[in-house]
Amino acid sequence: MQHQKREAECLEDVMNQTVDQLKEYLHNLRQYDHILSLLYWDMNTLAPEKGLEARVSAINYFSAEQFRLATADEYGRMLEELRKPELFDALDPAMQLTVKRYSRDYERFRRIPEDFYTSYTETKTRSEKAWEKAKQSADFSVFAPYLDKVISMTKEYVHYMEPDRDPYEALLDLYEEGIDGDTIDRVFAELKEGLLPLLNKIEECPRPDLSALEGSYDMIAQKKVQDMLLAYIGFDADAGATAESEHPFTLDLSIGDVRVTNHYKEDDPLSAIFSAIHEGGHAIFGQNIDPSYEGTAVEKVDMMGLHESQSRFFENILGRRRSFWVPVYDKLGELLPQFKDIPLDMFCSAINDVHPSMIRTEADEVTYCLHIILRYEMEKAIFRDNIPTDKLPQLWNDKMEELLGIRPENDGEGILQDMHWSDGSFGYFPSYLLGSVYDGMFLEALETEMGSVDAILEEGRISEITAWLNKKIHQYGSLYTSAEVLQRVCGRELTAQPLLEYFYKKYAKLYGFC
Amino acid sequence: MQHQKREAECLEDVMNQTVDQLKEYLHNLRQYDHILSLLYWDMNTLAPEKGLEARVSAINYFSAEQFRLATADEYGRMLEELRKPELFDALDPAMQLTVKRYSRDYERFRRIPEDFYTSYTETKTRSEKAWEKAKQSADFSVFAPYLDKVISMTKEYVHYMEPDRDPYEALLDLYEEGIDGDTIDRVFAELKEGLLPLLNKIEECPRPDLSALEGSYDMIAQKKVQDMLLAYIGFDADAGATAESEHPFTLDLSIGDVRVTNHYKEDDPLSAIFSAIHEGGHAIFGQNIDPSYEGTAVEKVDMMGLHESQSRFFENILGRRRSFWVPVYDKLGELLPQFKDIPLDMFCSAINDVHPSMIRTEADEVTYCLHIILRYEMEKAIFRDNIPTDKLPQLWNDKMEELLGIRPENDGEGILQDMHWSDGSFGYFPSYLLGSVYDGMFLEALETEMGSVDAILEEGRISEITAWLNKKIHQYGSLYTSAEVLQRVCGRELTAQPLLEYFYKKYAKLYGFC
Repeated sequence: MQHQKREAECLEDVMNQTVDQLKEYLHNLRQYDHILSLLYWDMNTLAPEKGLEARVSAINYFSAEQFRLATADEYGRMLEELRKPELFDALDPAMQLTVKRYSRDYERFRRIPEDFYTSYTETKTRSEKAWEKAKQSADFSVFAPYLDKVISMTKEYVHYMEPDRDPYEALLDLYEEGIDGDTIDRVFAELKEGLLPLLNKIEECPRPDLSALEGSYDMIAQKKVQDMLLAYIGFDADAGATAESEHPFTLDLSIGDVRVTNHYKEDDPLSAIFSAIHEGGHAIFGQNIDPSYEGTAVEKVDMMGLHESQSRFFENILGRRRSFWVPVYDKLGELLPQFKDIPLDMFCSAINDVHPSMIRTEADEVTYCLHIILRYEMEKAIFRDNIPTDKLPQLWNDKMEELLGIRPENDGEGILQDMHWSDGSFGYFPSYLLGSVYDGMFLEALETEMGSVDAILEEGRISEITAWLNKKIHQYGSLYTSAEVLQRVCGRELTAQPLLEYFYKKYAKLYGFC
Repeated sequence: MQHQKREAECLEDVMNQTVDQLKEYLHNLRQYDHILSLLYWDMNTLAPEKGLEARVSAINYFSAEQFRLATADEYGRMLEELRKPELFDALDPAMQLTVKRYSRDYERFRRIPEDFYTSYTETKTRSEKAWEKAKQSADFSVFAPYLDKVISMTKEYVHYMEPDRDPYEALLDLYEEGIDGDTIDRVFAELKEGLLPLLNKIEECPRPDLSALEGSYDMIAQKKVQDMLLAYIGFDADAGATAESEHPFTLDLSIGDVRVTNHYKEDDPLSAIFSAIHEGGHAIFGQNIDPSYEGTAVEKVDMMGLHESQSRFFENILGRRRSFWVPVYDKLGELLPQFKDIPLDMFCSAINDVHPSMIRTEADEVTYCLHIILRYEMEKAIFRDNIPTDKLPQLWNDKMEELLGIRPENDGEGILQDMHWSDGSFGYFPSYLLGSVYDGMFLEALETEMGSVDAILEEGRISEITAWLNKKIHQYGSLYTSAEVLQRVCGRELTAQPLLEYFYKKYAKLYGFC
């Protein structure tokens, strides 16, 4: 007995020591995440043109340092030690996940030559800036050589990481672990099948007259609307910040510092309004992860489908409802006086005006799904069919015509509209639609537990919904995979049916074709 | 001959190789400057309260990494190698200066224990945030324990760096190399002697009636005024950025990325206007350093007297002249319509209203000198007489009464007004006044070469003055010490007489007592 006890104690000492070492190592690694995120934030919100070279130098340098730390023998040994069953079994779930996930990343990174990694990082940084210019001038030729290089280097990158895997499958796994191409194919087919008849029905109805919304909306007031909406949905301004950028995004520097950007358009206040709610949803997720997970892999949510489900839940499931606006529509009118003359019902028609349009980020929630299916098909064409870069704009336009019945007049409203490919984020797009599919399921679970969402919203109790999401999803960070979250929250497997039901019910009522 | 040539060639090879190595090493070191500057920038302009701990972690980590690089044996060996006369003599002046200055810094840093350095860095970061809170609530007790610690650690810090030197002399040398306490004593005494009779004369005159300026000034319009003024004086917006902070400051990330902040007050547009011109002057210096000095010590201007001379030249020597405003006063009125009803002459009276007041940054250019003399005397009291921290507010108030005849009602308008001591920048304050003293001399030189400044400004040719400063001063960065710059530009040694002459001439005319 005595002997056994000493052995157990000794094992515990070894474990604690190795865990402490790993935690310290991860603490150091996190500093590079922090600084590279801040460099990214600054580059996309404030840094001037002439500072680009110095900025690229800094990003290259710290990416290389991070790479060195993330692939060091010493780090590998710590992870290996903690993978031993007698130690691993005694770890808490967050540390188990950390060891598992970071061991996988370690193995992946070890297969990438350092020179390649550095050069890939630099290529992506320059490509992003080139995309920004190309988008502004709607000139694909400015971006094409960069995109071409990013595509070929991304192929090489994933081949290093996962040499035995289909490259696009490996990319999908980077953004939504455990949801493979077959699953996406199945769910997206389910959606396409359900959506096309719905769209046909909607297109038979007359479009609402929205000319009352036309006009010029003060940009500074739009910024105030963003602040008002962020506060309304539960964004904690003491744990975040806001800024402007070409393309809205959310960035997590730490649980106490989650930032959102927006892009204001003088003639289109709805764009910034829904970007605010969308990015706010992301940020609320990041701000509400249990702080006890700080320093573990749980804190980093890289399941982007799950992340998008939260932004899109706020943006669409809540934000495009009449009841969402009941408690705040007057405030909107105070900040942007034009809305005083627009009845709430007309506003609701405007934000649910389903019709094919060019720009994904401004699409209604129904045709949005087709925008994503388009991008998913494009990415398969790039990674599986190896379509040459110069053929991509035409392929985009053809698919647009096929899926949405419209054709872009220039690449600015076509292939250049999104930033994702400029920084190599191939495989990210499906996350948006997966997020919506999860949302259909979350909505069902929420209403089962709490009753009608409309009743809650109309009574100004949105904070109860935010709290429900915090409790059911946000606090756990990435402790559970999306599939596990669906099981825990909804008690069922991935299916597009609840989303389709939500669409049918909502639009039948709005357009009166039921 | 043949043999000698080979030897010379060989020497050149060795030198080039070592210079290349050093340049690469300095390139890496610069990345830490870049990132620490960006962390500082972000912390003071945007980062939220709850992100502080993560931010402090990042600053600590990268400061420690930088310290390690800056004190590595390898770095010391490179510098030592290049100090050998046969190599040193063949270096270009910028590299000679780099080797000399960085050898000095290396020796200084090597004497500081790493643990102490890390702890000092963290203390300063926390102290800055405590100062911000203390200032907002005008509560010295919030700041006192931090200040106390910063003072004692700063004493320890300089003692490590320069063990055989008087600590305050060592601090002065950090901010204005080569200008010692005796010189400052002499020049400040010269000033005090000249200023007190001038102030007496001015105080006999009635103060202008400035009630027409009272009112509420739109903060967003004030921001636009800043942009307009920055463009007017020659700030390159493509090589910089602007933001808001508690205390205005300028930050150089690279020659192509020099940033300024401002602080807007609804009831006092002059505050932000003159901060804009002041920080703009700093930024124009940073933006116009010859890019060929990039990567050498010349790029970093740590002679703060010289730096302040440029900000204060724009702010005071130019910015407080009627002729400065002639080409832009209408624009000011367009942005802030209240100024349409204020005649330019009344505006000029307002910006040259000499009278004792509490806040340094809002003081007129004459009493400002006494604000600095007060701080210089306080710093000597702290570092030479070791006055306890809790006695400092009273000492401040006593000195204020002695020098300016007024007494602060609370510490917010007293000892808490400036951020400098919160981050350990003792020895910086004299730079402001040295800057003004240099300015008197620069003005004399400029008018000798180019004729009346008023004529140039009134004709809207301010860019010629900016170009003169670029050519004479900015392009050289820190290649020459302040004393050398004075010799090169003015052909004489440091003297307060030209500044006093400028004051006498200007205020005799304005107040009509000549």
